[in-house]
Amino acid sequence: MLDPHATSLRIVVINTISHPHDLEQDRDPHLEAQLQRSRDLRIGLLQAGYNVIASIPGDIYLIERLTQLQPDLIIIDAESDARDVLEDLVMVSRDAPRPIVLFTEEGNPSQLAAAMNAGVSAYVVAGLQVDRVKPVLEVAVARFNADQKLRNELHETKTKLAERKIIDKAKGVLMSKHGLSEEAAYQKLRKQAMEKNLRLVDLAQRILDVADLLG
Amino acid sequence: MLDPHATSLRIVVINTISHPHDLEQDRDPHLEAQLQRSRDLRIGLLQAGYNVIASIPGDIYLIERLTQLQPDLIIIDAESDARDVLEDLVMVSRDAPRPIVLFTEEGNPSQLAAAMNAGVSAYVVAGLQVDRVKPVLEVAVARFNADQKLRNELHETKTKLAERKIIDKAKGVLMSKHGLSEEAAYQKLRKQAMEKNLRLVDLAQRILDVADLLG
Repeated sequence: MLDPHATSLRIVVINTISHPHDLEQDRDPHLEAQLQRSRDLRIGLLQAGYNVIASIPGDIYLIERLTQLQPDLIIIDAESDARDVLEDLVMVSRDAPRPIVLFTEEGNPSQLAAAMNAGVSAYVVAGLQVDRVKPVLEVAVARFNADQKLRNELHETKTKLAERKIIDKAKGVLMSKHGLSEEAAYQKLRKQAMEKNLRLVDLAQRILDVADLLG
Repeated sequence: MLDPHATSLRIVVINTISHPHDLEQDRDPHLEAQLQRSRDLRIGLLQAGYNVIASIPGDIYLIERLTQLQPDLIIIDAESDARDVLEDLVMVSRDAPRPIVLFTEEGNPSQLAAAMNAGVSAYVVAGLQVDRVKPVLEVAVARFNADQKLRNELHETKTKLAERKIIDKAKGVLMSKHGLSEEAAYQKLRKQAMEKNLRLVDLAQRILDVADLLG
């Protein structure tokens, strides 16, 4: 469990905003708002004393870089469409789940859906204020912890169910092969697993693997 | 599934801020900030065209009122400590889960923990801007939908596991009582369930209920 109030978290910022080469020439108000938010985000992180270990672009090296950096928390400083980055993060999060915070200037429905799918812990649209960066990150970490608890519980329950099915099948094999009662088959399995120093389910899987061969 | 972008959602606002009787006399800047946020929230909801069906206090009638109103979404307009309200919402949400959005002027760790425990979909600290109300609610509903999907999957998996245990036990009873093989016991159960028009697990539970009596 990450501490929501720790500022020692190792943070990587993924920056998907492409700065124009000549700002004077290009006074797009939407881009201006994005750049302002981007600045406020950086100031907010610094003022709160967070440990930003890297600021990287959302390019084709993203997955590789994140695997190397192993941050505790990921911030996406997003242009209007960060779906490519989000897709990459689905991949990275599968092996190493961590809080993801997305700041964007304009919400759009398909990006929101992609963000939920990628397990984003906080999705913050428009008008970021410098002093809001810290509370947003704290809430994101608390949310991530709550999510992980639920996901772990789901994973454990699924595993139990799958294991029970395998053990039941193996029990059935022993019962029909040796004419055993259910209880006797189960005791036989348990005894054998202990002797071989195997988990019950692993022994059961081996029995199923070779049952056909042994006929 | 609620539509994150629908403004037709029936919203109840729970107001935990106690307005002073004499504003002139009491110029507490913290209270001022709370009252300003509270106003901005109301303006934001109106401007976005949301359907606010009631604004109610977080008092002892809260659970009763929410049960009567049956809103699609709950907003807590929170004083520094809304833990009593959050505790009530844990109760209400158990039977009828719905997105909960909490706006507060100052974060505090124990309130954040209580909010996550109550299944709050969005927890927004400080400096609410009028035009951010809509995106915050949209993200909250999307988050709620994603959470519910996970919770439903967990509930289904737990149910499957529990049912499998009951069916297995009943199978064991039939096997030892009638000297049946596992397969034969299972077929007997299935046939009987179909004839009695019962779910397999319900028949299994009845067998377990009376197994001791019948000896």
